Amino acid sequence: MKKVYHLDADEVPNRVIIMGDPQRVINLSLLLENPVEISKSRNLFIYKGYYNNKEVALASHGIGGPSAAIVIEELIKLGANVLIRLGTVGSLKKEIDVGDVIIPTGASYWHGGAGLGMYFNNICPPTNPSYDLVYDLIKEINNNQIRYHVGSIFSSDSFYAEKDYIDILIKLNFIGIEMECATLFAISNLRGVKSACSLVTSNNLIKGTKGDYNDVVKRIAKIILNVITSN
Amino acid sequence: MKKVYHLDADEVPNRVIIMGDPQRVINLSLLLENPVEISKSRNLFIYKGYYNNKEVALASHGIGGPSAAIVIEELIKLGANVLIRLGTVGSLKKEIDVGDVIIPTGASYWHGGAGLGMYFNNICPPTNPSYDLVYDLIKEINNNQIRYHVGSIFSSDSFYAEKDYIDILIKLNFIGIEMECATLFAISNLRGVKSACSLVTSNNLIKGTKGDYNDVVKRIAKIILNVITSN
Amino acid sequence: MKKVYHLDADEVPNRVIIMGDPQRVINLSLLLENPVEISKSRNLFIYKGYYNNKEVALASHGIGGPSAAIVIEELIKLGANVLIRLGTVGSLKKEIDVGDVIIPTGASYWHGGAGLGMYFNNICPPTNPSYDLVYDLIKEINNNQIRYHVGSIFSSDSFYAEKDYIDILIKLNFIGIEMECATLFAISNLRGVKSACSLVTSNNLIKGTKGDYNDVVKRIAKIILNVITSN
Amino acid sequence: MKKVYHLDADEVPNRVIIMGDPQRVINLSLLLENPVEISKSRNLFIYKGYYNNKEVALASHGIGGPSAAIVIEELIKLGANVLIRLGTVGSLKKEIDVGDVIIPTGASYWHGGAGLGMYFNNICPPTNPSYDLVYDLIKEINNNQIRYHVGSIFSSDSFYAEKDYIDILIKLNFIGIEMECATLFAISNLRGVKSACSLVTSNNLIKGTKGDYNDVVKRIAKIILNVITSN
Amino acid sequence: MKKVYHLDADEVPNRVIIMGDPQRVINLSLLLENPVEISKSRNLFIYKGYYNNKEVALASHGIGGPSAAIVIEELIKLGANVLIRLGTVGSLKKEIDVGDVIIPTGASYWHGGAGLGMYFNNICPPTNPSYDLVYDLIKEINNNQIRYHVGSIFSSDSFYAEKDYIDILIKLNFIGIEMECATLFAISNLRGVKSACSLVTSNNLIKGTKGDYNDVVKRIAKIILNVITSN
Amino acid sequence: MKKVYHLDADEVPNRVIIMGDPQRVINLSLLLENPVEISKSRNLFIYKGYYNNKEVALASHGIGGPSAAIVIEELIKLGANVLIRLGTVGSLKKEIDVGDVIIPTGASYWHGGAGLGMYFNNICPPTNPSYDLVYDLIKEINNNQIRYHVGSIFSSDSFYAEKDYIDILIKLNFIGIEMECATLFAISNLRGVKSACSLVTSNNLIKGTKGDYNDVVKRIAKIILNVITSN
Repeated sequence: MKKVYHLDADEVPNRVIIMGDPQRVINLSLLLENPVEISKSRNLFIYKGYYNNKEVALASHGIGGPSAAIVIEELIKLGANVLIRLGTVGSLKKEIDVGDVIIPTGASYWHGGAGLGMYFNNICPPTNPSYDLVYDLIKEINNNQIRYHVGSIFSSDSFYAEKDYIDILIKLNFIGIEMECATLFAISNLRGVKSACSLVTSNNLIKGTKGDYNDVVKRIAKIILNVITSN
Repeated sequence: MKKVYHLDADEVPNRVIIMGDPQRVINLSLLLENPVEISKSRNLFIYKGYYNNKEVALASHGIGGPSAAIVIEELIKLGANVLIRLGTVGSLKKEIDVGDVIIPTGASYWHGGAGLGMYFNNICPPTNPSYDLVYDLIKEINNNQIRYHVGSIFSSDSFYAEKDYIDILIKLNFIGIEMECATLFAISNLRGVKSACSLVTSNNLIKGTKGDYNDVVKRIAKIILNVITSN
Repeated sequence: MKKVYHLDADEVPNRVIIMGDPQRVINLSLLLENPVEISKSRNLFIYKGYYNNKEVALASHGIGGPSAAIVIEELIKLGANVLIRLGTVGSLKKEIDVGDVIIPTGASYWHGGAGLGMYFNNICPPTNPSYDLVYDLIKEINNNQIRYHVGSIFSSDSFYAEKDYIDILIKLNFIGIEMECATLFAISNLRGVKSACSLVTSNNLIKGTKGDYNDVVKRIAKIILNVITSN
Repeated sequence: MKKVYHLDADEVPNRVIIMGDPQRVINLSLLLENPVEISKSRNLFIYKGYYNNKEVALASHGIGGPSAAIVIEELIKLGANVLIRLGTVGSLKKEIDVGDVIIPTGASYWHGGAGLGMYFNNICPPTNPSYDLVYDLIKEINNNQIRYHVGSIFSSDSFYAEKDYIDILIKLNFIGIEMECATLFAISNLRGVKSACSLVTSNNLIKGTKGDYNDVVKRIAKIILNVITSN
Repeated sequence: MKKVYHLDADEVPNRVIIMGDPQRVINLSLLLENPVEISKSRNLFIYKGYYNNKEVALASHGIGGPSAAIVIEELIKLGANVLIRLGTVGSLKKEIDVGDVIIPTGASYWHGGAGLGMYFNNICPPTNPSYDLVYDLIKEINNNQIRYHVGSIFSSDSFYAEKDYIDILIKLNFIGIEMECATLFAISNLRGVKSACSLVTSNNLIKGTKGDYNDVVKRIAKIILNVITSN
Repeated sequence: MKKVYHLDADEVPNRVIIMGDPQRVINLSLLLENPVEISKSRNLFIYKGYYNNKEVALASHGIGGPSAAIVIEELIKLGANVLIRLGTVGSLKKEIDVGDVIIPTGASYWHGGAGLGMYFNNICPPTNPSYDLVYDLIKEINNNQIRYHVGSIFSSDSFYAEKDYIDILIKLNFIGIEMECATLFAISNLRGVKSACSLVTSNNLIKGTKGDYNDVVKRIAKIILNVITSN
């Protein structure tokens, strides 16, 4: 019988890198030594393996706060206590180009949404990553000479309703828009585990530009692996 | 270049059966004649094929409102105009057992959540399926002698925050709890397409019972295929 | 002593047609065999009588959700289990003319309003009519060759604040605006009774047209009587 | 053609006493000299006549905020600029007995409700009567030796959902519960007209007592008539 | 040991005039006979003394609802039962000039704000001053031939976010904007004590005018002293 | 003429330590070389001087979000770009004793409150301090052997309404309760400046203990001065 409701694994390493796309988990599992699939429930694959001689897992959380909330809660139940998300982001600033990295220091969301309404009701929870992971991520990115930006982002629940809010989000000084960071940060804070995120810019919503960014994803994955295995 | 942001397909049949688990899409695609995978983006597989000589697709929408909203919006952009969800549900009534089917006539949700907050702001949208699809589903289920129940359900954003609300949800006369119907119904109404849902009871939250229900899923899949291909 | 707080009747037939205007109840009571006034409290008249040899009542619910909620709750306490509203509606679509009928499949409302805030707090309840009554109503209207439209409507609490919202309501795909359906549908779902509605277009808010529609009201009354007495 | 959407009258006196029950309007019209019915639309009767040689109208607003809001808005459009409500109230204090009068100094309501949500959105408007009318009402009641109480009340939208909130309402120091004062006071403030209210206790919600209070209603009607005709 | 958490005083007179700026308390204490500082905690000075042979205190409540709420709650705990605020206000009407006085009859605020969210949750409390104090203030101002205006104001939490709301606030018929009246009125109602306010216009937000108004402040202080000592 | 609406200063150093109590500003100004008072408006004193040869200011922000928001906005307009709050906190954990230090990593608040409602409407903004300031503060506190705790806190608007929420706040994993951090962090993020906070435990809400903590305040002030002058 399964230990948790959705995932198949019986336990996971305490260090887990999470990402939305299950295919990315499979691809990036090649960065690990001895990668082993430990959960494939709902195609939200989890692989574990070694990096810098430390055990680490890669897990997919699907799209959006409610999906991510389930995966995060279950990973924590199965042993995770450091969660770093590797995701993509739409840029809300002209100068943040496709392929640039955003390290979010906080994540805004629509009141009641992000899978957080039933947890917090009329209270707005803190949606910050762990300061020390942010510190380490930035240091490591600096060392790798990748263009990056640090700031607040907006975690949207409604990809196809976003366009009416772009002007407001920019005015509120959010530099990017994605879908799961508020959930990750709020639930990690609630459960007392560490979390952070690195986001690769997939498109620029001001300039309307897109482009390939897969190379950056791989470089960032290694950076996260270095950070998470040293924590 | 992709026609929509997330899915790979260039077009989809106008009839689509959606479900959360991508693996279920793969399994149930065997019910179709000439099943072909037409999208595998983010492992949210879509297959198309024929049933009763009508073209139909099976698509996975992942977990939760925000994920489902993206898939539903993109399916509609790609041609879908009848969407029937096949899902699972936790029963909130003692007499609704594992393996029983629930046909939701409406779906409640937490204000601001279900991926609907940014669409509707302070307005509560209608979250009803199409009356005629509900009518047809019930008629067909009746013909197949499956135990079923008709009523309102609650579409939760927060699987792991639900336990504090069970008593309230029961008092409000919701007979089951799942995660995506409110989103499906509200967005289908917004976009002017038809939708409905059949849910197989996976567990009873009052009695704490679980059990196997895969056989019912397969039977319900055929019922939905019959209904959707006659609409 | 009265059985319920507001209404005078001791019991009502299980089939009740409700409408806002008490005068309409009096007028339409002539359609019944042996019409008898059974409540006149607050001039919210209730008549009962026979149609197709079935007992049926006509009741007025006044204007707005809070008034309708009281009447609906008390009718249910007094025995009603099928409630069909006959009302008027302002059209939000150019092609829905004065005298056309709208069969609402769901009713939107302002969060906290419609007399529902204290029932549901931060939960948005389902506001759908009974699928089978909708099905029957449409079939019967079809047989009578009345122009009709099926879709979502907005149940407003604030007739004189509506004008600032017309553009938003149209964008959200609501085809008409009236004042009590959300309340009827939500409370009927809560109490486990059947409900539906037929609305006659009294004016077109896009074109600014008005006109006489009393003949349609009478025709629709007969249609509802036929439907409710066959359920 | 009608001047306003719902009421029949072409104009009304600038002084109007409003009440929920249309029958009460008819009964109390006997207090006026030369009473004339000037609107009977939806049985929300309006009578006008003279008292103390001043023209005054009695109008029924039906039950609940949305109904009252329409009547109040239309009365103002037709010329009213002083509105005093005569209503009944459930007592939330042990010492406020059936037949006692409550003069509300402010009216609380459920956010989004009372027919005010679409007017004020996320702003909470002031829901106070006119201080000078309150002053005059109390002076006049004092002169007539009627037991009265002054304080905040709760204007409920949901008579049948109130029972879950009684303890909270008492803790918040509300001394009575009725259904339309918040609407009257907020809309009068919005439109720049004067308003106030006198409420006769119909039942005590703490002690569960009821009783006859019609004599007090008549006495209070005269008091309001004296106050309104001297303003 | 202190009797209350923030203030130093052991008791205060039952009549207290409150104002935001501690320096104004010091300045106006010169109007009292035998002024004595009785609390200086957090520089929110309180002085007591005599006026018209009645004991009265002047207290500073700082800026904004949360600060004022603490001071008001503690003043009440220490014996206050009549609280009149002397403040400044930005005018939202062309004809209300710098130096004119506004007597608020009710105070609007942002839902959840004004330090009231945790007290009242989803209920909007009444935010009215005591009618009799308003009556007395206006009579006394009239006697002193100061230009004054009576109406609803908006109590803002966010001085630097106000500019986006000016048009809405004007449309809602608020004649001035300040920061603490909603809090004063709601908490006074909650605790069963009397409150009112006189506001001196410091600037006109429509015309963009400012000017000196200190002389009016002093005159109003005397008016309030006369009113409060006769209550 | 003043450069900003409330404060007197014409400019402030870019490094500012803020605290609620004006008296604390005066006391701690003695830690600076050449302390000079540069604003005394509303007794919210600001001193500037030198520490480690860097110019730094101490400013009081009063009590609560709305007051703090004004001071923070004006300090930023006058030149501040690093703001560190020194405050006190009530402990929500048994093991956090009087005199212990809490470094908040995020601050929760009541939706609509904290002076943030009008800025963000239905969006929940990120309420995190700057990760690098948190990092530096913790390093410096470690070096000084002060007992400290790192975690999420709740920024309350309603000191006297808190007691009903203690159990919920503890369940949500907040370790302390104070009144201004959410405001500081959200507005600093909005305006693109750096902020952080160190809080000295003044009392333990679980154990009901209080005690003297002034010595720790002085030690923490020096720590903050060291951190802020090295940034």
